[in-house]
Amino acid sequence: MIKAEELAKKQREISIAEFFTKNRHLLGFDKPTRALLMAVKEACDNSLDACDETNVLPEIYIELKKISEERFVVVVEDNGPGILKQQIPNIFGKLLYGSKFHTLIQNRGQQGIGISAVVLYSQLTTGKPIKVISKISANKPAYYYEIQIDTQKNEPKILREEQREWKREHGTRVEVELDGKYQKGRQSVDEYIKETAIANPHAEFIYIDPNKEKVVYKRVLNEFPKKPKEIRPHPYGIEFGTLLWMLGKTSARSVQAFFINDFSSVGAGTAKEICERAKLNSGKKPRQINHQEAEALLKAIKETKIRAPPTDCLSPITAEVLEKSLKKEFNADFYTTVSRSPSVYRGFPFIIEVGLVYNGELPKEETAKLLRFANRVPLLFQQGACAINEAVLDTNWKPYGMQQSGQNLPVGPLVILVHLCSVWPPFTSEAKDALAHYDEIIKEIKLALQEAGRELGLWIRKNIKAKEQQDRVNLFEKYIPELANSLENLTNKKSNKIQDDLNKILKKGLKDLMENGETKK
Amino acid sequence: MIKAEELAKKQREISIAEFFTKNRHLLGFDKPTRALLMAVKEACDNSLDACDETNVLPEIYIELKKISEERFVVVVEDNGPGILKQQIPNIFGKLLYGSKFHTLIQNRGQQGIGISAVVLYSQLTTGKPIKVISKISANKPAYYYEIQIDTQKNEPKILREEQREWKREHGTRVEVELDGKYQKGRQSVDEYIKETAIANPHAEFIYIDPNKEKVVYKRVLNEFPKKPKEIRPHPYGIEFGTLLWMLGKTSARSVQAFFINDFSSVGAGTAKEICERAKLNSGKKPRQINHQEAEALLKAIKETKIRAPPTDCLSPITAEVLEKSLKKEFNADFYTTVSRSPSVYRGFPFIIEVGLVYNGELPKEETAKLLRFANRVPLLFQQGACAINEAVLDTNWKPYGMQQSGQNLPVGPLVILVHLCSVWPPFTSEAKDALAHYDEIIKEIKLALQEAGRELGLWIRKNIKAKEQQDRVNLFEKYIPELANSLENLTNKKSNKIQDDLNKILKKGLKDLMENGETKK
Repeated sequence: MIKAEELAKKQREISIAEFFTKNRHLLGFDKPTRALLMAVKEACDNSLDACDETNVLPEIYIELKKISEERFVVVVEDNGPGILKQQIPNIFGKLLYGSKFHTLIQNRGQQGIGISAVVLYSQLTTGKPIKVISKISANKPAYYYEIQIDTQKNEPKILREEQREWKREHGTRVEVELDGKYQKGRQSVDEYIKETAIANPHAEFIYIDPNKEKVVYKRVLNEFPKKPKEIRPHPYGIEFGTLLWMLGKTSARSVQAFFINDFSSVGAGTAKEICERAKLNSGKKPRQINHQEAEALLKAIKETKIRAPPTDCLSPITAEVLEKSLKKEFNADFYTTVSRSPSVYRGFPFIIEVGLVYNGELPKEETAKLLRFANRVPLLFQQGACAINEAVLDTNWKPYGMQQSGQNLPVGPLVILVHLCSVWPPFTSEAKDALAHYDEIIKEIKLALQEAGRELGLWIRKNIKAKEQQDRVNLFEKYIPELANSLENLTNKKSNKIQDDLNKILKKGLKDLMENGETKK
Repeated sequence: MIKAEELAKKQREISIAEFFTKNRHLLGFDKPTRALLMAVKEACDNSLDACDETNVLPEIYIELKKISEERFVVVVEDNGPGILKQQIPNIFGKLLYGSKFHTLIQNRGQQGIGISAVVLYSQLTTGKPIKVISKISANKPAYYYEIQIDTQKNEPKILREEQREWKREHGTRVEVELDGKYQKGRQSVDEYIKETAIANPHAEFIYIDPNKEKVVYKRVLNEFPKKPKEIRPHPYGIEFGTLLWMLGKTSARSVQAFFINDFSSVGAGTAKEICERAKLNSGKKPRQINHQEAEALLKAIKETKIRAPPTDCLSPITAEVLEKSLKKEFNADFYTTVSRSPSVYRGFPFIIEVGLVYNGELPKEETAKLLRFANRVPLLFQQGACAINEAVLDTNWKPYGMQQSGQNLPVGPLVILVHLCSVWPPFTSEAKDALAHYDEIIKEIKLALQEAGRELGLWIRKNIKAKEQQDRVNLFEKYIPELANSLENLTNKKSNKIQDDLNKILKKGLKDLMENGETKK
């Protein structure tokens, strides 16, 4: 046989489900502790997204039931809009299926992998299906499903399907059994829920841990966050292949109309300018644009000044709400929050928000705690690989009253929260642990940290440093009578007079110090 | 409308090609310099795999044609077996298509993503198709194709397809145009080809760089490497879901036969033992095994002593060949190589090979250069995240005559080469840059480094240290006449006699030193 024919016999298609089964570490299912967290996280992300999209104040119930040290049942239940019966199998039983991949809008989910990856991992480690119950309105029945994934086809396998009674008006409950391990600490389910509550102050969380202890995170505000709007792509973020593809499928009749309709931030004037620069008739039909002309258009886009993309696709927490949320979660002496104006990377708008919490009661020799968020989702892994971490290390914390040695995290009783909202957070892996190092993003984070840092520095000077000064003054005051007596002996001046003078000097110095602190504000 | 219905309208399937277009950084196409390298790498990996699988001594021609500073045409041509006409479109125009995903055998390729990702990136940045010409034997025609990927369907789009004359008897040539940037240095195409030649001494490489300079890497040996054999999975590496799936599709008639036929390293005795431990009739039909019984089987596997998997699925470079290869590539004073016995992680066999090259002529104050390989492919990125790096840092290099401060790379004129062969190298991402931190792998690398390090230490003591001693002796010798004269003045003994005595002492000390060095070996 010809050698090429031998080789050809083995060629075949690989299903995405097979691919991720074998490479499950790419999705975050590399260790049992992490697998447990991923299950909670993916289910909660979906619940919160669904509630936010349909204006429901989220109420999320999370329970971890311990089967053994190495096996758990994860339950996540929400009061969301529910899922249409016919959509349930695909959403849970098919990877790369979802509503958010093709839309430019701030969302927790992105790739349509999350919850089906949990199902994949559950069936790999326990052979059990996910159990889903969902109801979309009071006058419709609830549907119950048991679903697995046919990994060879990446298609849902329905093991059970029935109508059920369910107490809720609408919502979804998922229950999944998997090999996992429960741990407390920085990368735990407990921490994930706590941080999620901070970033989602409009949501309520009820959490039953494996020891059956109940923790409730009440909502801080009873309003919906601003609902983000979907936007069209910005010309600056477009790549050549995408431009060709868009030209091929647009319904616009002219290149000018194409730019106005299919992109954001382009008006008639800008569209004309792009065409002129590209030496192209702006009335030409998009489908008639050839390769060379498309290249000229792309070049022209880069040379044309186009206004920034609209930012109503973003829903920041806002400085005010974030401060409320931090005050509820941390008992501290000082809080400051910053929500920056929108900025842009690769044509995608984004907003950076920062919060600093200082608690003088806590040990001063520990490293600051960094909380990272993207689209209101806490990032608990790969801190070292994350742009947020780099921005914090790159910031000089000494002027803000913190200790810092070299390019390390500052030392002191400080919590640093950084939140990126974007229509497309640039994650470094499918597991969505860390943000890629885009210069524009790092720069914005640093500016936000500096803004908050200055507030912190002022407060520390006024309160901590001034208090330290006052302590020193008090100490000195004690010695004044003693000192005055000794001076009387040496100078033959009256001890009383000396004592009064010393007291005056001390008071004056302190006053200057305090005023100084004030005027600097 | 009910809210769930609104949401449902947006749900849809995401093609894997769309997914990786948007997430191309996951595949290594994040920067133009790297994109250029990835194109060369993926094409070469395929060429080498195809040659090795069909016993052809590889002859690979690589050319980078510069179109502009930011655009290149990459050409890779081989003398391999060629590709069947009907396979060409899928291999280049469909992600997750390949021959290596489902087989347990040492291969460069793995996931069926590589070359089609290059096509995806090329069409995204330039809109151009890949051009492929392939011929499978002297008496068959060559076929020429121009192929793109329909990203929405993840299917090949054939732009051109024709029979052509081609000088070669068999082989494949690909030509792809893409946005990229050419750079020299550690992470360059030049370095990739050089390192690939080191790890593939049976292959010849002809490389034309963008400045039209030609570099030829001649082959070091004219034999095929040992051809690896495909193996079945080892029971220790099996997960519950996989066991269920295998039970469902086996052609074996009994559980005992299932274990013997479908796994490696299981004989009749071991199969029986597993069944007994699981309290299961070994004659039971695999398809009748229920959930509980399967769980018992998995538990029994873990408790049963099963011999290690066969290792003929691996094709190490071997210590002898690796040394030849290093001698050809590096002009140095000392070479040592180690090829360990096979070891196992998660049921997958693997072999670690190590080479050390010491060149006393080079500056002594620079950090050692680390060359990492997996299945004969150089790993040029993400060194910090790689298990190989960790093993090198964890090794104490001081006993081997190197400087080392803390947990850093050793300092000195040293090249450290580490090669992992495995049927499934555990890469940390689709871009296959770094190996995950499995304890078994790190331990084996450290043992190999220690073995090679001891050889290095001996040589350094004998040659470098002894030479330093000799230099000191020579220096001292110069002063002996002077010293003898002074001593004559002080002691009134004859200068000649003193000089002789001093010389004797010096010689004796040196001899002892040299003998000491010898006996330590």
